[in-house]
Amino acid sequence: MPVYRCSIPQGLLTDDQKQQIALEITDIHCGLTNGTPRKFVHVTYEEVAPGATYVGGERSTASKTIGLIRTGRPQETRSELVRQLTDMWARISGQDKADILVALQEVRPRDAMEWGELLPEDGVEAAWIDEHGLTNAGVSAT
Amino acid sequence: MPVYRCSIPQGLLTDDQKQQIALEITDIHCGLTNGTPRKFVHVTYEEVAPGATYVGGERSTASKTIGLIRTGRPQETRSELVRQLTDMWARISGQDKADILVALQEVRPRDAMEWGELLPEDGVEAAWIDEHGLTNAGVSAT
Amino acid sequence: MPVYRCSIPQGLLTDDQKQQIALEITDIHCGLTNGTPRKFVHVTYEEVAPGATYVGGERSTASKTIGLIRTGRPQETRSELVRQLTDMWARISGQDKADILVALQEVRPRDAMEWGELLPEDGVEAAWIDEHGLTNAGVSAT
Repeated sequence: MPVYRCSIPQGLLTDDQKQQIALEITDIHCGLTNGTPRKFVHVTYEEVAPGATYVGGERSTASKTIGLIRTGRPQETRSELVRQLTDMWARISGQDKADILVALQEVRPRDAMEWGELLPEDGVEAAWIDEHGLTNAGVSAT
Repeated sequence: MPVYRCSIPQGLLTDDQKQQIALEITDIHCGLTNGTPRKFVHVTYEEVAPGATYVGGERSTASKTIGLIRTGRPQETRSELVRQLTDMWARISGQDKADILVALQEVRPRDAMEWGELLPEDGVEAAWIDEHGLTNAGVSAT
Repeated sequence: MPVYRCSIPQGLLTDDQKQQIALEITDIHCGLTNGTPRKFVHVTYEEVAPGATYVGGERSTASKTIGLIRTGRPQETRSELVRQLTDMWARISGQDKADILVALQEVRPRDAMEWGELLPEDGVEAAWIDEHGLTNAGVSAT
């Protein structure tokens, strides 16, 4: 975690754009949550055919990114996350902001397991990351 | 938001039925949440192949609709939403209610961005909608 | 409910493995939540193409299982669920635990409908199950 799931219209993004957005989601998330190891940031794209998505009952070309983050991030961080993710998405995809939705859901750290470990609670994160050798050192934050 | 994601067996619904259900989800949501602009109601279908979904460990043909709504709707509204959505789904799809699951999750308004704006909190919604010219006026609620 | 949604790399699992994991998810969930009817446990697989999923901005082969369970399960149960699900997934899929993520989200029983009924609250579950003839009697827990 986090896990960002992006529901996009078929053909909206090239593979290069998908990778670039995945990198920038990682940059934004790690930049705002100070200490999240980059290799914890998952991004998955799901392409949706034209007849399979609607808004207001009419066919839609909106992109919907739902992020699953751990509890404990302050409101200011969460609002800034959706703001920066929206701006970045508009810039790379070329979509109008009227067609971009970003929302965050929360999961308690003790309700999630990764790398065979329950996620660390707020406050013990640094020690946990250190213990598991998961610092960002040596990983360029492009 | 809201975003309704419908996981359905491959071939269950025609394109017309998908559009009709999307319209009725919009009608039901806006009818019960008094003031939600229709163009905020997203519906996405995901078709699942026979070997890819199970219930009790056996192959399943159930439909599962998970709605992401904003916090602040009263319990009575939320229960009525899942009740009306279930009834509508049974009527249009022809599925037995034993094969229909509907569930709601909540997202805080300040954790979501659409149209380039954080979603409005409870109580300031009407002013927000007015300010952004998103009233339902002129949009027929078929 | 519960609904377990498994996002997996394309080709990771055979149909037999998918069914086996669905069975074991059912066993684990029912074993730890004492009283959940087996026919309430949904499992859906979503196969993701190589260029469609990333971790830390690089292509990923991780599996991500997100479970939607009802509120009211104690923390100990929830942590034990993700622990046993991770162990089982590693054993059947052969994936390294560094490539396995399991997380749980909660839904209030009155926010969900299945079999045409709102889900039962904690404490009245047994009576509800009995009333609807949904005991596990006669269903082998393989």
